[in-house]
Amino acid sequence: METASNSVNLALEKSQEAFSAYRKLSPTQRKDILYAIADALEDAANSLVSIAQKETHLPKPRLEGELKRTSYQLRTYSNFLASGLALDIRINPGSTTNEPPIPALAKMNVALGPVAVFGSGNFPFAYSTAGGDTACALAAGCTVIVKAHPAHIETGRAVSEIIRKCISNFNLPDATFQQIEGGFDTGEALVKHPLLKAVGFTGSLKGGRQLFDWGNSREIPIPVFAEMGSVNPVFLLPESLSKEFYGIAEKLSVSIMQDAGQFCTKPGILVAIASEGLEKFKKAIIPLIQKGVPQKMLHEGIFENFERNKSNALTQRGVGRLSYSQTDVSELEAEIIMAETSATFFLSHPDLQDEVFGPYSLLVVCQNEKEMKLVARNLEGQLTTSVFGTSIDLNTAASLLDILKEKCGRTILNGVPTGVRVATSMQHGGPYPACTDSRFSSVGADGIRRFMRPVCFQNWPDELLPPELQKANPLKLWRLVDEIWVKPDIK
Amino acid sequence: METASNSVNLALEKSQEAFSAYRKLSPTQRKDILYAIADALEDAANSLVSIAQKETHLPKPRLEGELKRTSYQLRTYSNFLASGLALDIRINPGSTTNEPPIPALAKMNVALGPVAVFGSGNFPFAYSTAGGDTACALAAGCTVIVKAHPAHIETGRAVSEIIRKCISNFNLPDATFQQIEGGFDTGEALVKHPLLKAVGFTGSLKGGRQLFDWGNSREIPIPVFAEMGSVNPVFLLPESLSKEFYGIAEKLSVSIMQDAGQFCTKPGILVAIASEGLEKFKKAIIPLIQKGVPQKMLHEGIFENFERNKSNALTQRGVGRLSYSQTDVSELEAEIIMAETSATFFLSHPDLQDEVFGPYSLLVVCQNEKEMKLVARNLEGQLTTSVFGTSIDLNTAASLLDILKEKCGRTILNGVPTGVRVATSMQHGGPYPACTDSRFSSVGADGIRRFMRPVCFQNWPDELLPPELQKANPLKLWRLVDEIWVKPDIK
Repeated sequence: METASNSVNLALEKSQEAFSAYRKLSPTQRKDILYAIADALEDAANSLVSIAQKETHLPKPRLEGELKRTSYQLRTYSNFLASGLALDIRINPGSTTNEPPIPALAKMNVALGPVAVFGSGNFPFAYSTAGGDTACALAAGCTVIVKAHPAHIETGRAVSEIIRKCISNFNLPDATFQQIEGGFDTGEALVKHPLLKAVGFTGSLKGGRQLFDWGNSREIPIPVFAEMGSVNPVFLLPESLSKEFYGIAEKLSVSIMQDAGQFCTKPGILVAIASEGLEKFKKAIIPLIQKGVPQKMLHEGIFENFERNKSNALTQRGVGRLSYSQTDVSELEAEIIMAETSATFFLSHPDLQDEVFGPYSLLVVCQNEKEMKLVARNLEGQLTTSVFGTSIDLNTAASLLDILKEKCGRTILNGVPTGVRVATSMQHGGPYPACTDSRFSSVGADGIRRFMRPVCFQNWPDELLPPELQKANPLKLWRLVDEIWVKPDIK
Repeated sequence: METASNSVNLALEKSQEAFSAYRKLSPTQRKDILYAIADALEDAANSLVSIAQKETHLPKPRLEGELKRTSYQLRTYSNFLASGLALDIRINPGSTTNEPPIPALAKMNVALGPVAVFGSGNFPFAYSTAGGDTACALAAGCTVIVKAHPAHIETGRAVSEIIRKCISNFNLPDATFQQIEGGFDTGEALVKHPLLKAVGFTGSLKGGRQLFDWGNSREIPIPVFAEMGSVNPVFLLPESLSKEFYGIAEKLSVSIMQDAGQFCTKPGILVAIASEGLEKFKKAIIPLIQKGVPQKMLHEGIFENFERNKSNALTQRGVGRLSYSQTDVSELEAEIIMAETSATFFLSHPDLQDEVFGPYSLLVVCQNEKEMKLVARNLEGQLTTSVFGTSIDLNTAASLLDILKEKCGRTILNGVPTGVRVATSMQHGGPYPACTDSRFSSVGADGIRRFMRPVCFQNWPDELLPPELQKANPLKLWRLVDEIWVKPDIK
């Protein structure tokens, strides 16, 4: 602990010092840096993908796509910043002739300070060293300390070196971005350090809650945004099942099995009403799962958790195996499983809602609509909920849809929850335990807001205001002036 | 505790039930209700002000102004809502021709659920029963449970009755708004209740931190926004002091003494460099404080805290009395005090930064600019920082101004921090301990965001989307479509 604490202390002192320089950059300057990082990552794609392949066992095309997505995030988040949208600028001019005079107010978001990023195991690029949280924090004007994920440490080192080279090309202090390595002690020292101002995390409920508790029990609490996954329930409505059973089974089986089901948006629970349509759906999905090819999981820890969590579910007397992959598995390869239970059993066994991270899904069979609604009502907070339904199904399911909207950050119609589009309108983060603060998102440019706070300037003359707030709008930003969005000039 | 817990449980069950109806109202319908409450409060002004006068000892014109401000908040926050600005709508159309298809996404803020409001003692109208937090929560679509402030219970009851009558006129469930009475146990039961979704609080650091800790240690944590006051340091720069000493002394003495200094934005610390100008300023402010008329404080608890906190500061050997009011004081009347200390003593006694709520301010005398910056750097988080300076002063004070911006939510030039303008561009909430989450404000319509979270709709057909997100924009809302703000129609 002593050593962890010393190196963390050094990192934060350097980060705080770098912050005083980095925060002064204009949105456009920050954009230039993020673009440079995006370009450099793409230039190094071959080498990065090959390192990550060895460490994570993820397929090459997936890693290539993920790296592109990482660059896309860096570019689009910094576009959002440079257009002013991340700054939430509000301007209300004053009046000196009024009695009493009305003060002139102008408000914009500024960076919180040094941010710690705990990347995810399953996204070595898009949610790790140069991933979404880093992109948001750097766009916000914060300095960043990444705690490297031990399961892909070489990938992390290579990406970190690329970022640090870009930072240095812009003549910024090295410590604008740092990556440190270490275990539990290092994480604890980081989150408890007085100079740290916020935390971004992607990972397990247990890990996220620990960071959240540390952050909130500090003498000066800091926001901890932890995205902790979910079971992403999918509701299969009767007419849709009966008519589209094969297409639905195909989409769902791909979504469950892809990359060994190692996605926080993997559909972990399917809910349907007993019917002929459901029987047809089962007949369709059973062979699709059987034909599924087991893939190597990310690392031993993930594999062991998968085996344990799967077995915790499957050994319950009310849970059966509907289908499983027929290929023999080698080391670290995950057998694919579709389990089945009744709504009654599901409702009386809340632990069946625990996430089983890997190629596993549980079909919950209801007797009727009422039971289906009960299942919906008993769900914990989720990243996503999905519904497969025809227009007739949906017309009769209004109250179910209402419940599902309440439970999640994103609700999907006739599609699967995996394949998270990176866009401002994305919401990735739902009610707890999906994440620690459902008011924010970890995907999309609005995630920048997690790391900023507003400062209001009262009665400052134009020349002493930050350019973002000056009358002529020299940076050409979107600004809300007397409740009207204007760009680029105030009359 | 048993009784508190039972009544809180009943209140929350009713609140949750009412929420399922209230949340379905359109922004315009919510606006109509908030306007009706604003009108009803103004209609009852004479009676309300007279009840509040008896309970709080605040002067009639102040209470009349505060009631107008309360109605103004209700109206302007609901305007902000009805124009769509509180909904943070983001729309990114999809593409079915792309390979793979790009999903269509549309996102908007929705209400969190039942919100508890703990109003303030010093604002019986504007930050209590029908105050800012209630206005934000009702605008957001949340149901509200106010824990009545014991120091103005009759005012609270009268206001509550007016709100409930309005709610009932709109045929909404009574429990859309509830007020409960009780002590510590009631507060604890409320914040720990599983159905509660968020907390708004205005009051002391001790009280706010307690609620924050309860909220975060729940099995399912909830956001607790506590505005806990600050000492609002005012920096007096040399040329300004030397030229404008009298005007500054007048403004500051009024700001310190007004309504017995019972404002969370009262300037509690003045910082200046020893100089002739400072001597002139002292000579000017001494008689202004001496002539100050002691006023009755809100209640015995506040008075006793004031006496104790003031005495904690004044009994330290490095703190002297610069000036105090000369009129004898009767029961609950607060003697007005201006104290003085050196920067050296101030820097080595951090407890001198503790808020002394009442007509008290501490002048901190620095030897030079460097010491002044050291004082600035050692300040805790503040709601506001203020600077009095000429343009020459400000030209040489850039690094001081930078430090001050970092410490606060609002920074004021050549003015006092009291007199908080209600506007979207206001920021009321700064780094801890000023409030528990500096990313939000408790004054201004952006405060609505504290009680909402985004939900994203993926691939839903237009007719199944909420009207807020439908293509034709039937509610005529501001919406960010592909990163462009548009109103009222999407092409």
